[in-house]
Amino acid sequence: MSALPHVVIVGGGFAGLWAARALRRTAVRITLLDRGNHHLFQPLLYQVATAGLSAPDIAAPLRHILRRQRNVTVLLGEAIGIDAGAKHVRLADGGTLDYDLLLLASGATHTYFGHDEWAQYAPGLKTLQDALDIRRRILIAFERAEAENDPDLRKAWLTFAIVGGGPTGVELAGTLAEIARHTLRGEFRRTDPRQARVLLIEAGPRILASFPQALSEKARSQLARLGVDVRTGARVEAIDREGLRLGEERIHARTVLWAAGVAASPLARELGVPLDRAGRVVVQPDLSVPGHPDIFVGGDLASIQCDGKPVPGVAPAAKQMGRHIAHAIRAKLHGEPSADFRYRDYGNLATIGRMAAVVDLRGFRFWGLPAWWFWLAAHVFFLIGFRNRLVVLIDWARAYWSYQRSARIILGRDNEPPR
Amino acid sequence: MSALPHVVIVGGGFAGLWAARALRRTAVRITLLDRGNHHLFQPLLYQVATAGLSAPDIAAPLRHILRRQRNVTVLLGEAIGIDAGAKHVRLADGGTLDYDLLLLASGATHTYFGHDEWAQYAPGLKTLQDALDIRRRILIAFERAEAENDPDLRKAWLTFAIVGGGPTGVELAGTLAEIARHTLRGEFRRTDPRQARVLLIEAGPRILASFPQALSEKARSQLARLGVDVRTGARVEAIDREGLRLGEERIHARTVLWAAGVAASPLARELGVPLDRAGRVVVQPDLSVPGHPDIFVGGDLASIQCDGKPVPGVAPAAKQMGRHIAHAIRAKLHGEPSADFRYRDYGNLATIGRMAAVVDLRGFRFWGLPAWWFWLAAHVFFLIGFRNRLVVLIDWARAYWSYQRSARIILGRDNEPPR
Repeated sequence: MSALPHVVIVGGGFAGLWAARALRRTAVRITLLDRGNHHLFQPLLYQVATAGLSAPDIAAPLRHILRRQRNVTVLLGEAIGIDAGAKHVRLADGGTLDYDLLLLASGATHTYFGHDEWAQYAPGLKTLQDALDIRRRILIAFERAEAENDPDLRKAWLTFAIVGGGPTGVELAGTLAEIARHTLRGEFRRTDPRQARVLLIEAGPRILASFPQALSEKARSQLARLGVDVRTGARVEAIDREGLRLGEERIHARTVLWAAGVAASPLARELGVPLDRAGRVVVQPDLSVPGHPDIFVGGDLASIQCDGKPVPGVAPAAKQMGRHIAHAIRAKLHGEPSADFRYRDYGNLATIGRMAAVVDLRGFRFWGLPAWWFWLAAHVFFLIGFRNRLVVLIDWARAYWSYQRSARIILGRDNEPPR
Repeated sequence: MSALPHVVIVGGGFAGLWAARALRRTAVRITLLDRGNHHLFQPLLYQVATAGLSAPDIAAPLRHILRRQRNVTVLLGEAIGIDAGAKHVRLADGGTLDYDLLLLASGATHTYFGHDEWAQYAPGLKTLQDALDIRRRILIAFERAEAENDPDLRKAWLTFAIVGGGPTGVELAGTLAEIARHTLRGEFRRTDPRQARVLLIEAGPRILASFPQALSEKARSQLARLGVDVRTGARVEAIDREGLRLGEERIHARTVLWAAGVAASPLARELGVPLDRAGRVVVQPDLSVPGHPDIFVGGDLASIQCDGKPVPGVAPAAKQMGRHIAHAIRAKLHGEPSADFRYRDYGNLATIGRMAAVVDLRGFRFWGLPAWWFWLAAHVFFLIGFRNRLVVLIDWARAYWSYQRSARIILGRDNEPPR
């Protein structure tokens, strides 16, 4: 057994898990290391943050997913360093993990562009715990507004600002507007949640910049119909506990959510090779690291161009990279040259809110209700595990008819907002 | 509107919520105050702790439950004192809440019989957050065992001790044994979860002391069949991070759960009236407080005898008290005398594990599979809300066939056990 080459995979996201699965019939020993015990279906994380789904609905234990794949050992732990000379990964608990071949797929985190002090006021959305924190802030904001006597403060508690007009920002803004206008309707006695203001703030000239211009405009008008105040070309200058500042304008918003900057996991810096502006590893065409043919990088941590365009940080790209790296590892073990990675772009889709979405399938574009149904089907289909699919469908069917959200539970030790 | 008498209800559990609902057609203003935003179906809390259900499955927002009842205002906040002379409740945020009539239904918490230092090593199970903490400890213990090289430490990580042989302790022990023997089977490469030891420790002579002797014995043999080591007449002398001590015996258990002592909410002491040994308010036959006819106490906070037997701290008793207090409040507003509370005991049931339970319906006793089906039907029936019932049924149907548990997700900031 120990004579088999040891493949260490850091990260059980789409890239890492798909690579592990694609190596199931390969004569290797695999160790899959992750800080959490679960694979997370990140495209639906905003639904946990907005109380539509519960955390276990969109996550499954890595051990359980891989239980029948006997060549994999799942390990709960955190990689904090890489020694490419000694060929081992350093772990947070002080141990090391030797490898013959390494796949780094530890993903990305949010960045505040040098303003780390904003993190406490404007949480980002990357993990399940982030989602539960955001859910807590949103639900408590409405409670605070109800208990508040000062009309200005009440208004500030009912103002929600989302920074960043990418897919996550658009999803959060649309869903928040739906919660304020429909879900909470009639449940408060002193405030009217429909008076809540939802702002979506984007520094660039348009939201959903990765989509064609026409779909950005469709998304903007759909958001406006839901009551979201979309501000493009608006740069955030400051964020504090009372709100944020856009140029000369001060916005009093007690809830600010950060969906703007994405930075690669700091593990990338351990390799000592060139990184791109977002801190990602600029990989070779076969997804290996320059000068380290035994180290591969996949998912959000890899920076690569295909057909002259950067491969986007989305789940389908990460899965394709994971599978490609499994092929490259097999080729290497057989002494064959590895092929170049080619990204197959099946399309791009973003949901906006109740019955509103935009879809771009290689130039075939649609929006509104048909796009929403397409988005729903695609996401439920790709969710891991039978139970999750069924429960998510039930929750959504219920939400569709009743506007209700099934996970409106504030978890935590006390009722104070976390700031 | 403000001329109507103001009824303040502290606590949105079974007693408080059922009282509020029973007052829906009464000409009063009701304020329902709770520290959380949700009503919790406490009888299934152990399922959240053992990863069978997710937190929102057994909780529903109080605001949502009461949204159509226009005479209720729900307030998120914590009562920390009562001034019976000035007739107001003091709140943790510094405010006060005036009342004409007060219902105290703030429930119970766990007590360590003067050993508060045990709390950090042996968490109890009262809130959703408690359940998520226990879930985390259980799942991490198996992970730690897998990562551990020292066989003694590995054994300690695979030893689970539950202190207290009441219904909660029995449920936790039975479910933990099932997880170790079935759920996690084949998912670990270095350890065999089936070697886990589950101990149920009870100081008294038998478990499930509130049941007839014969059913206690049935429960014990069903637990033994699941592999649980039941120790009766065993008094815990010490608990620390490495385990616990029973007389001269030292048990190395890295996971100790506390299901032994229940104490009334400290709010009871604010009334300045006699309390029973568990700190509960010894109420009048109509559930009012001696000397304070405008204050009622219900649920786990009330100490009362019916037909010479103490009314147990169970959900049906709390609901009946809540409804009775609503009647008493109406009688008082009409200047009529209030009736005495009479507890209708429909029966007693406890679940033990997969297909095992004990039921005592006023002398009609059964156990095993029929009791388990009865328990299942009763609990799903009483769960609040359509979605919850359906989702819980799906999860349980799946668990029944596959032994899988749908919420095996470790939540939290890091992977360290909380001690």
